[in-house]
Amino acid sequence: MKDAQGETGDGGGAAGSGVPSPSEMLPGLDEDQLRVLGEVGRAWERMPGSPAEQRRALPVDPDLGRFPPKEEIGPDRFGRMVRLASLGSGTATADASPSEGTGRFALRLRHALIGAPLKSTAVTRERMRKLVALPVLSADALSSVAYGPEALLAVLVLAGTAGLSYTAPIAGAIAFLMLAVGLSYRQTIRAYPHGGGSYIVASDNLGRVPGLVAAAGLMTDYILTVAVSIASGVDAITSALPSLSGYTVPIGAGVIALLLVGNLRGLRQAGALFAAPTYAFIVAIFALVAVGLYDAAGRDFHATATPHLNVTEGVSVLLVMRAFASGATAMTGIEAISNAVPAFRPTEWRNARVTLTWMVGLLITLFGGTTAVIILDGVVPNSGETVLSQLAHRGFGSGVMYVYVQAATAAVLLLAANTAYNDFPRVLFLLARDGHAPRLFLRLGDRLAFSNGIALLSGAAVIVFVAFSGDTSALIPLYAVGVFLAFTLSQAGMVRHWWRLRNRHWRKSMFFNGVGCLLSAVVFIIAGITKFTEGAWVAILAVGLFLLVTTRIHHHYETVRAALRLHPRAIEVPMSQEGTPEDGRAHGDRPPGQEQPLTGSAGSDGSAGGDGSAGGTGSAREDEESPEEIRNLSIVPIATLDLAGMRALAYAASLQQPVLALHLSPSEAEAEHFRSYWNVWGDHLPLEVLVTPYRATVAPLVHYIEALHEQQPMLTLTIIVPEIVTRYRRHRVLHSRTANRLQRALRPLPKIVVTTVAYHV
Amino acid sequence: MKDAQGETGDGGGAAGSGVPSPSEMLPGLDEDQLRVLGEVGRAWERMPGSPAEQRRALPVDPDLGRFPPKEEIGPDRFGRMVRLASLGSGTATADASPSEGTGRFALRLRHALIGAPLKSTAVTRERMRKLVALPVLSADALSSVAYGPEALLAVLVLAGTAGLSYTAPIAGAIAFLMLAVGLSYRQTIRAYPHGGGSYIVASDNLGRVPGLVAAAGLMTDYILTVAVSIASGVDAITSALPSLSGYTVPIGAGVIALLLVGNLRGLRQAGALFAAPTYAFIVAIFALVAVGLYDAAGRDFHATATPHLNVTEGVSVLLVMRAFASGATAMTGIEAISNAVPAFRPTEWRNARVTLTWMVGLLITLFGGTTAVIILDGVVPNSGETVLSQLAHRGFGSGVMYVYVQAATAAVLLLAANTAYNDFPRVLFLLARDGHAPRLFLRLGDRLAFSNGIALLSGAAVIVFVAFSGDTSALIPLYAVGVFLAFTLSQAGMVRHWWRLRNRHWRKSMFFNGVGCLLSAVVFIIAGITKFTEGAWVAILAVGLFLLVTTRIHHHYETVRAALRLHPRAIEVPMSQEGTPEDGRAHGDRPPGQEQPLTGSAGSDGSAGGDGSAGGTGSAREDEESPEEIRNLSIVPIATLDLAGMRALAYAASLQQPVLALHLSPSEAEAEHFRSYWNVWGDHLPLEVLVTPYRATVAPLVHYIEALHEQQPMLTLTIIVPEIVTRYRRHRVLHSRTANRLQRALRPLPKIVVTTVAYHV
Repeated sequence: MKDAQGETGDGGGAAGSGVPSPSEMLPGLDEDQLRVLGEVGRAWERMPGSPAEQRRALPVDPDLGRFPPKEEIGPDRFGRMVRLASLGSGTATADASPSEGTGRFALRLRHALIGAPLKSTAVTRERMRKLVALPVLSADALSSVAYGPEALLAVLVLAGTAGLSYTAPIAGAIAFLMLAVGLSYRQTIRAYPHGGGSYIVASDNLGRVPGLVAAAGLMTDYILTVAVSIASGVDAITSALPSLSGYTVPIGAGVIALLLVGNLRGLRQAGALFAAPTYAFIVAIFALVAVGLYDAAGRDFHATATPHLNVTEGVSVLLVMRAFASGATAMTGIEAISNAVPAFRPTEWRNARVTLTWMVGLLITLFGGTTAVIILDGVVPNSGETVLSQLAHRGFGSGVMYVYVQAATAAVLLLAANTAYNDFPRVLFLLARDGHAPRLFLRLGDRLAFSNGIALLSGAAVIVFVAFSGDTSALIPLYAVGVFLAFTLSQAGMVRHWWRLRNRHWRKSMFFNGVGCLLSAVVFIIAGITKFTEGAWVAILAVGLFLLVTTRIHHHYETVRAALRLHPRAIEVPMSQEGTPEDGRAHGDRPPGQEQPLTGSAGSDGSAGGDGSAGGTGSAREDEESPEEIRNLSIVPIATLDLAGMRALAYAASLQQPVLALHLSPSEAEAEHFRSYWNVWGDHLPLEVLVTPYRATVAPLVHYIEALHEQQPMLTLTIIVPEIVTRYRRHRVLHSRTANRLQRALRPLPKIVVTTVAYHV
Repeated sequence: MKDAQGETGDGGGAAGSGVPSPSEMLPGLDEDQLRVLGEVGRAWERMPGSPAEQRRALPVDPDLGRFPPKEEIGPDRFGRMVRLASLGSGTATADASPSEGTGRFALRLRHALIGAPLKSTAVTRERMRKLVALPVLSADALSSVAYGPEALLAVLVLAGTAGLSYTAPIAGAIAFLMLAVGLSYRQTIRAYPHGGGSYIVASDNLGRVPGLVAAAGLMTDYILTVAVSIASGVDAITSALPSLSGYTVPIGAGVIALLLVGNLRGLRQAGALFAAPTYAFIVAIFALVAVGLYDAAGRDFHATATPHLNVTEGVSVLLVMRAFASGATAMTGIEAISNAVPAFRPTEWRNARVTLTWMVGLLITLFGGTTAVIILDGVVPNSGETVLSQLAHRGFGSGVMYVYVQAATAAVLLLAANTAYNDFPRVLFLLARDGHAPRLFLRLGDRLAFSNGIALLSGAAVIVFVAFSGDTSALIPLYAVGVFLAFTLSQAGMVRHWWRLRNRHWRKSMFFNGVGCLLSAVVFIIAGITKFTEGAWVAILAVGLFLLVTTRIHHHYETVRAALRLHPRAIEVPMSQEGTPEDGRAHGDRPPGQEQPLTGSAGSDGSAGGDGSAGGTGSAREDEESPEEIRNLSIVPIATLDLAGMRALAYAASLQQPVLALHLSPSEAEAEHFRSYWNVWGDHLPLEVLVTPYRATVAPLVHYIEALHEQQPMLTLTIIVPEIVTRYRRHRVLHSRTANRLQRALRPLPKIVVTTVAYHV
């Protein structure tokens, strides 16, 4: 099958819906194409017999009794479950895969790692309660508290105590930003109950390019979510166990590998289990804040003095802005709920809004509380230990509670990384559906996960993680840019949406979205400018490259789609005046009672005038839409007259089209030998012997075929290649792969059809 | 073409000849097969028209005016020169390879490295004069003087001065051995003027297994010649430049890479240039010996005292034997001339004998002289500097002459390694010709070199060199075993040869060969026993493995050859009684004037009784030898009714065989959609829609096809797969490779023919 993914991308999927469906891969035909299809069909009307007659004439019953089988059978060698109820002897599949020993092992390994395949219809079953949705979907946002405040302090501390005095106001600004963006996303949820990711909202309301830019921002964001969350999670672990600090990169890469395998299995199903880390983290931070405030209350909320600081920079607007941009990473992941509205139980949008409100409330509380305790305790960032770990040490010493805080932090960060594994492939799916990404991202794996997207995310995240040596503070500057770019475009799209819609409450909604958009834009610009040299340029470059690649992919798909559209032409059938093709074939000069497999269309050409080069109506364009437009010539390259070669000749002759046998000989003497064999056989088919003094086999054949094509461009040349297929893969090296090589060499040539006649040894 | 290399290995090559010829790849048919071929041909006699008529009926002129072209044109994108004189517009090849940008670069790189292709007929032009043949062919033997005496001393020195006193007698024994083996090979040259390598002589006279054992010995020998010569050559360099001593492995690996590239270019042509190092080395050793003897004459030939030695072993028979086995490596390469008799100018065997005599004379002189000077100078092996280097330092200080000696030594060793590059692929060629090695070793590369054998040798040599860290003394124990095993078998074969022949001088020849054989066997046994634990086990294991693999390869080729033999059967043609197939096709119930591409053989089946399952005479065995035995059904998997899909349907219908279209649908609703499109088009072909709830496309198709095959095992199912071919390789990832995947999955199934209808975008 050319492409179950469908090369033509029109129609089909419900625009704006984020729910994956296998039918996205099989697009429908538009009105125009349907009309043309009917016209094209008219050219086929010279075909004989009614459909029922033709069906009866088939040498098999295509229904096969009971296909597909009703009962489900375990996965077979393809790792997918469609298997035929056995017919007759029931050994068809067993016979057919004798050489799959290694393949079976690979399959078993794959099932052990990834699990048995699932049905497509299982997709929609996974809906979440609010109490499950909250922790699962807010893990990304809440876990940001683990690195956001620290990133903020890390900039301010460069200006020493004077710098640190700006902590509170900046944190306040960030909290306000969280509130504004949260309110803004409440509007999005209402407007896009089927899932309003930034890509959908931006492309719906602002157009293709803003949509792609938003998608680019989102995708860099998701890659960085994995990298930053894991870097920060590893920090939490190495803070508790400093002896592991040398192994940051291998630990992180190992965790990404685990996420890869887990997500290929389809981790989403374990939603309830995933609720635990987030709740544990919330409890941990609340405890930390409570203890911190209690301690501070003991000293009347006087801040503890910070340790001595090396001042390397003065306080400046730029410094404050950089700190703000870094701290704003604490709100990454806030968009997660608006993407995942359809995953809620009905009424989806209402449940989603409630959950969002809770999440934003928790986020602001945790962020504010943590920052307050940091200020009160006078904690400053330190390369060996995270700020949270320092707070936990101060609050709880090194006992069970300390371990609990660190473990909960690491767990929630891991879960946050996992969120990206749900979202990144979904965005890729949407891009692929719209023809902006390779269609292979449309494909759902065995476990209903977008395996290709998951693999791409893992690869990209590992590269970023290793390139930055798993250093959280080095990754932060890249992070904010993509996130806020996506936020800005998404909310700008919402402003446009309300303006166009102007339904009830549109002014309020537009106001909230407008404020969110404006603030996000400010953060994006601040982050882009102040952190450009620190790494933001990487993110901006990535967005640019992404835009370029997706645009070109889209262009390619559009080109292909246009090229593949049916377009009926006036078809001249050259022999329609002298007689029907049937008459032409039953031409008088052949004795009755003989098969004429060779002369079908050649005879027709003859009756049209006999000039071979002008006999057909086709051209080198491959746009034949009915059988009459096709003039066939079969070519059988033959090396030896053994069973495999003879079978290929017999097959070629059985197709009842003209056949030319082709033999390649290294010398004239060898050529004579072969001709004599040919005569012994009876010279039943035209033979052409090419003598070539070189050792190549493929090149002379291809050149000869090219020359034939040039001589008669309207001919469809079918190259019928005998091929030895060995039972065991290890024996393949013993046989020349000429069939394969020939096929590869002929691929670029027009109007060439390659047929391989396998002979199984 | 299935295999220009010819899967059937009978006939063809002149047995016993070592001269490669492209016709080895195209074996002929034996008497029996020719007879069967005629019988098989009789089944084809129902084919219409005389050959001339059929040729006239072809829609093209297969002669193409002037093919192949007389003039030579530069290499094209295949790297081989057979190119068609341009016909018509002359742009066939240019049109056909638009996407070969990277391919062209690779080709240019390859030509820069390897050079332009040569014609096959150039093989025989390269003949050598004696003065060129001597240095080229004796480089391997003479260069052994660089490590042989040192290897001998390295064992004796373990027993201190007492051990070293055995140097002279052992060296004498080795010199005698050289003489005996040299005389023995003189007989071989006379008996095998076409080249008497150990494999040929042993398999000719002793049978298949001894021949294979000899070949195994030879091939391990050649691999070790490369490894040891390069290790020793690098030693010569690091002795002169001790600062390089840490880089032994990279230098050696680099040299092997150079040899690889050089030999892929076909280095043999530079014979004259290659004479220099050997002559330079001979001069160097003579100078060294002369100076050494002159110095010794000054002190009345009293040996200089050796430095203080750590005695780690007592003198024992075992030690002496080990020393002898090690020293015997000084005669490796002595067989080179007997392999290469055809490379001499006429009269080949006479010139070869003269050259052999000269070589053995030189070898004994150089070996004896070097050993004498070593004894006189009291030089002992030393890990940092070779013995030759020490002698040169003593004789010439560190001036120009010293550098000259070291450079000549390194150069001759490099040349010796290169000898193996000529011989190893030749043995592989012979093995492949006899069906003991993969046929790909029959293939001559662009430059008339056996590229595959050269690559294999390089790979094996690099592995051995690196595994032993380029340490000459560690490699020596492996070396002697293979060489003397091959010597023994070769000379045993000669003994048998003379016994069978009993022509003039047979007693003398048999005596010489017998003595050579006996002595070689003694050395082989001594080396195998005394050095077993030091590394000889590796060589013995390699020989055993080689024997196993070659035997199984031979078995496979024999099985395939037997399976591919033609065997005519009584062919029932079911419709021959009711009427001719022609009548069957022009059956009455179809209105005249309509094409009936679908019902060709189906109609025939119908007239034979209408029972589809019993209509054919074939079976699941793929042994059809004539078109009447083949019952066709074409299956077109179709995803969308676009131009590519429509073209595949049109192509299928144009073959005038029954066609079944197959559509895969993820849901019943989608299936209904497609059926409605099909009806709009006109329902011109039978359609089967498979509904499968899984995401797989290939597996359900394959299962369905398997089930069809099981229903009607005698049918030949042609799967006609539309395929999008993109102009640029980078666009390939954008399209599903379903055609490829389907082809791979269908490969193991019997009676399935896969046809790909490429659509070029």
